[in-house]
Amino acid sequence: MRKIIVGVMGAGESASAIDRQLAFELGRAIAAQGWVLLTGGRNVGVMDAACRGAQQAGGLTIGILPDRTAANASAAVAIAICTGMGNARNAINVLSSDAVIACGMGAGTASEVAIALKEKKPVLLLGATDRSIEFFQQLGAVETADSIEQAIDWAKIICG
Amino acid sequence: MRKIIVGVMGAGESASAIDRQLAFELGRAIAAQGWVLLTGGRNVGVMDAACRGAQQAGGLTIGILPDRTAANASAAVAIAICTGMGNARNAINVLSSDAVIACGMGAGTASEVAIALKEKKPVLLLGATDRSIEFFQQLGAVETADSIEQAIDWAKIICG
Amino acid sequence: MRKIIVGVMGAGESASAIDRQLAFELGRAIAAQGWVLLTGGRNVGVMDAACRGAQQAGGLTIGILPDRTAANASAAVAIAICTGMGNARNAINVLSSDAVIACGMGAGTASEVAIALKEKKPVLLLGATDRSIEFFQQLGAVETADSIEQAIDWAKIICG
Amino acid sequence: MRKIIVGVMGAGESASAIDRQLAFELGRAIAAQGWVLLTGGRNVGVMDAACRGAQQAGGLTIGILPDRTAANASAAVAIAICTGMGNARNAINVLSSDAVIACGMGAGTASEVAIALKEKKPVLLLGATDRSIEFFQQLGAVETADSIEQAIDWAKIICG
Repeated sequence: MRKIIVGVMGAGESASAIDRQLAFELGRAIAAQGWVLLTGGRNVGVMDAACRGAQQAGGLTIGILPDRTAANASAAVAIAICTGMGNARNAINVLSSDAVIACGMGAGTASEVAIALKEKKPVLLLGATDRSIEFFQQLGAVETADSIEQAIDWAKIICG
Repeated sequence: MRKIIVGVMGAGESASAIDRQLAFELGRAIAAQGWVLLTGGRNVGVMDAACRGAQQAGGLTIGILPDRTAANASAAVAIAICTGMGNARNAINVLSSDAVIACGMGAGTASEVAIALKEKKPVLLLGATDRSIEFFQQLGAVETADSIEQAIDWAKIICG
Repeated sequence: MRKIIVGVMGAGESASAIDRQLAFELGRAIAAQGWVLLTGGRNVGVMDAACRGAQQAGGLTIGILPDRTAANASAAVAIAICTGMGNARNAINVLSSDAVIACGMGAGTASEVAIALKEKKPVLLLGATDRSIEFFQQLGAVETADSIEQAIDWAKIICG
Repeated sequence: MRKIIVGVMGAGESASAIDRQLAFELGRAIAAQGWVLLTGGRNVGVMDAACRGAQQAGGLTIGILPDRTAANASAAVAIAICTGMGNARNAINVLSSDAVIACGMGAGTASEVAIALKEKKPVLLLGATDRSIEFFQQLGAVETADSIEQAIDWAKIICG
């Protein structure tokens, strides 16, 4: 009965239009698999775009918010988990996901990829630069993908 | 699109058979309203019983676990949020619930009721002893109920 | 080389003048034993008074702050630990203390006493009402004292 | 009266002998400035080495531990803060430090540097590879140093 949760991490205010488009499509693809989408839940950037994509495809979305309330949550978050603990909630994002996909890169995203490596949680970099890939591969077993299809294929192996 | 979340808090290993029966029925009643049930998620006591009740009634269940993994989660938790932060997660239980119902009492439950009062979150004591009611009423605005019907009526007012 | 830490918990804005006076003297007495004082660190109520007492007696003071910064810390906190996690930091207050003394009562204090019981951490209620004592004694092994001398004698047994 | 806190982050079990030697000397230099040293507190790697260096120089050491108890703390930690929240405590390490110095690199360290950038906390990479420097400089304003003397000079500007 336990639902499979795929976490999508990415930049907030600083996310590029390309990152957001990728995140929207990734959210759609995750929902199409019947998986629950988990993000940091804020109403900006990759978090918001991925949730909107999943919602459009009829999927369930969870936002693990840094704030005490859901006032700044994405409108496409169905289940708002209010942690009130700022960036310390990044560890929860990682631990609660069966697989973690970083869509683009930002400081918060980097902390989540790093914690995933520390926790031996399966993690994939989607659309990352060579610099980011090389940095993380020296720290642990990080996977990479250039397309949503590749990312979903990887997650299928992990999530059964 | 945001789902309404009602948190049910209660004792774990030390929960009485009466507490567990009440929690099971409460979980059923919450699900029957179309609300999401949130608990501490472990596979014991009030947490487990409430989740089983909600699940039986076709409801969605969230467990905010103290552990890094879902290994000890209730089998009736559909969405396992793994915090890895022990009792510090009690604050998340409270903040993420639109309304909090304490079903019976235990040390962890008491911490959650107290945090709810601190955070001005609507909180109700179901089936509490006079001693517990008097203690918490000196600390803030806590409601009480003797029956599941009363508890649901209270939650309806809060959750619209 | 490990320093002994005694935690003093109590109300913030709502602390009575008597609570604050008691906390000040308790802080002094803890420092006089050579113990480090730990509080929730804010510049109000029992937290502030206990830190000022300990500081006046030449002791070391730690504040485990709910905020991201020390802007609202007591001026008598020497070491400010900024958690940025609100009331979730109450669990850290308890876990980091060799012994916990609740000085008066408030909603936050109640959450800390409850977590101490849950974590099997030695905890004493100083100057508590019968109602508070009876409530917590049904939840676990809580000690009580009517005077600072009694509280220090109890802590001496625990802290060697 | 508030003490200045300098955080030193670095690898645990995987730290190299060079990292540990650098951390030991860095701990000594921080203590020599009269600053408090803060680390992740475990009895391995950079955390342990930095604390031993600071302790040898007569400085005060704080360990922000991931565990519920201090059982696995470095023997050179004077003040053990037990968070019981695993890697979520990395955010506390950053927020509680006036300046953060990463000594070498590891997955946990990377998460702390990333959070420092996210929180706009002054952060310096000591002895980092070009790959690490380039990665973090694309995410925010990170400083670098090749020697302890340079690192201390940087911290002096921040810490007054």
